[in-house]
Amino acid sequence: MDNLYMQQAVDLAKKGRRNTYRNPLVGAIFVKDKQVIASGYHARYGDKHAERMAIDSCSTLEELKNSTLYVTLEPCTHFGKQPPCVDAVIASGVSRVVIGQSDPNPVVSMKGTQKLREHGIQVDFNDLGQTVQALNPYYNYYFEHNLPYIVLKQAISLDGKITAQSGTRTQITGASVNQQVHDERNEFQAILVGSETVLVDNPTLLASGATNFPSIRVVLDRQGRCLNRPELNIFNSQAPTWIFTTKKTNQLLSSNVQLFENETWTIESVVSYLAKQGVQSVYVEGGAQIHNQFLAANLFNELITYVGSEVIGSGGIPSFSGNQANPTSQAMKLKSVQQFGNDVRIVSERVE
Amino acid sequence: MDNLYMQQAVDLAKKGRRNTYRNPLVGAIFVKDKQVIASGYHARYGDKHAERMAIDSCSTLEELKNSTLYVTLEPCTHFGKQPPCVDAVIASGVSRVVIGQSDPNPVVSMKGTQKLREHGIQVDFNDLGQTVQALNPYYNYYFEHNLPYIVLKQAISLDGKITAQSGTRTQITGASVNQQVHDERNEFQAILVGSETVLVDNPTLLASGATNFPSIRVVLDRQGRCLNRPELNIFNSQAPTWIFTTKKTNQLLSSNVQLFENETWTIESVVSYLAKQGVQSVYVEGGAQIHNQFLAANLFNELITYVGSEVIGSGGIPSFSGNQANPTSQAMKLKSVQQFGNDVRIVSERVE
Repeated sequence: MDNLYMQQAVDLAKKGRRNTYRNPLVGAIFVKDKQVIASGYHARYGDKHAERMAIDSCSTLEELKNSTLYVTLEPCTHFGKQPPCVDAVIASGVSRVVIGQSDPNPVVSMKGTQKLREHGIQVDFNDLGQTVQALNPYYNYYFEHNLPYIVLKQAISLDGKITAQSGTRTQITGASVNQQVHDERNEFQAILVGSETVLVDNPTLLASGATNFPSIRVVLDRQGRCLNRPELNIFNSQAPTWIFTTKKTNQLLSSNVQLFENETWTIESVVSYLAKQGVQSVYVEGGAQIHNQFLAANLFNELITYVGSEVIGSGGIPSFSGNQANPTSQAMKLKSVQQFGNDVRIVSERVE
Repeated sequence: MDNLYMQQAVDLAKKGRRNTYRNPLVGAIFVKDKQVIASGYHARYGDKHAERMAIDSCSTLEELKNSTLYVTLEPCTHFGKQPPCVDAVIASGVSRVVIGQSDPNPVVSMKGTQKLREHGIQVDFNDLGQTVQALNPYYNYYFEHNLPYIVLKQAISLDGKITAQSGTRTQITGASVNQQVHDERNEFQAILVGSETVLVDNPTLLASGATNFPSIRVVLDRQGRCLNRPELNIFNSQAPTWIFTTKKTNQLLSSNVQLFENETWTIESVVSYLAKQGVQSVYVEGGAQIHNQFLAANLFNELITYVGSEVIGSGGIPSFSGNQANPTSQAMKLKSVQQFGNDVRIVSERVE
């Protein structure tokens, strides 16, 4: 029965999808005499945690006494936007807690578990064969590695070109891929591009749908080519924009735009800065030179390749090109292949 | 019932697969009183045609009198390796013939049909919605266009590179793709590569399985770089090898090797030469410069792209590259996507 209830907690957790921002998706279920007597999930960043939502749904704490709690993530022990859940769980009078996964942050991992056990509560673990971890892959990765999970995304022609001509935009993929990319952006806390992409494509870099927590638009613009160009879409007010540059500017920046000025910015130093700011996941949309630099820096986890339906030939600009970096090949593992209209989506995972 | 019997004739025709060489696959079924009373197919180049095989399977012609013949291809009217089928069909005493498709050769198309009708035999057509034509796509294309059907085949990394370094071979795809390519070669009368591919990869260019009609290995070697290199695998005795060059050689050529020497060879003149030799289909395995020249010459029908599972980066050689041609982009239509182990196979068809 443990599997069944944990699966219900996982399904509940998913209800918070796209609203918990940098918090993980969490679901919680209290079970007594084979009946689910209370349930909750983390619905939105800043709101109650899952355990608290379940507990608060009961009219008296008496109901929960000697019940079993199934919770996808180890109850927290620290004060954040909410008081620690572990105290509320102990106060609820449960006799057993089944935890999906421990806290990925090594500094606090297993502290909640320890405190529960110190209060005589039986604690077991059941991750449904990694199903629980798959709820929050980027959150887990970030805390385990102190680095954001980095996905490079490219759109290439059948002969691996990103555009037919330097400095011009070529529409490589069709409408259904464009929709998919807009949806995909929702999964990442930051969308990163180089200045060449901003100047040639003038993208908005926005995700589909409304959200209170739009992805940060990160522009690597070492030469300051996008500065003093307030008409560019990246400067609109619809999402935060962070520009990493070595140049100063007199441009009047609106409140959503931040400039990070430094003598030099490498891929490593930008990623490290993002990690320090708590950015757990980055979607790198290119262009070819930026991708090539990420490859050279050995700093990416996945590659999503959209293959369009034209052959461009020798006049085009090859994917992963440019002279600023001299990378070595990286072996990948195929994760999935999918057809999108006339285009193909290939997801590949880095082989360590 | 016509559909049912024509489908049976199609299924029979397929039994000749890979053995009829430049002849089409053909199946024939005689039906009388809702019973199949005789059947045949073209089993091998030089052997009896389908109609004749079916007729000869009867002990007396009397059996076939007033029956209906279902045959996937219009009966022939000319003497080739076999006498004309149309005469045998008329002599069989059939009262009706259902034909899958007319002869694709415009010079003789509908002549068999006309002769049958002149003898009072009812003739109908039923191609099962192009199913019949799909039996012999290259044969049909060749006679309709006076050109071979040309399929470009490439193996590229996830960033569209064909090798990690100029002049060296990089294994881009895994074992299951290699097997598939060997199988695929069987479908084509000629396998074409440039001299760079021969010198760098030293391929055998052979198909899998034994056959009496191996594909011709066509090498475009304008500078004669492969000549006087008898140790190269293309010079082994296992298949014919045709070399198109502008150079003379003293190399002693074995009987399977033919040299076509000319002051100049373009993609157009090579393809035109192959067409005159009756080559109905060509599989162009590259490399990048040859593919780029076929794109520039506007001479290809399909592209098969095998996408491997590594990222090579800016040091690699891009697919469809080189300075000898300046092609314009060609729009394609996605025909199929398939996973082969860790690799992906994408088949795209030219959009006219």
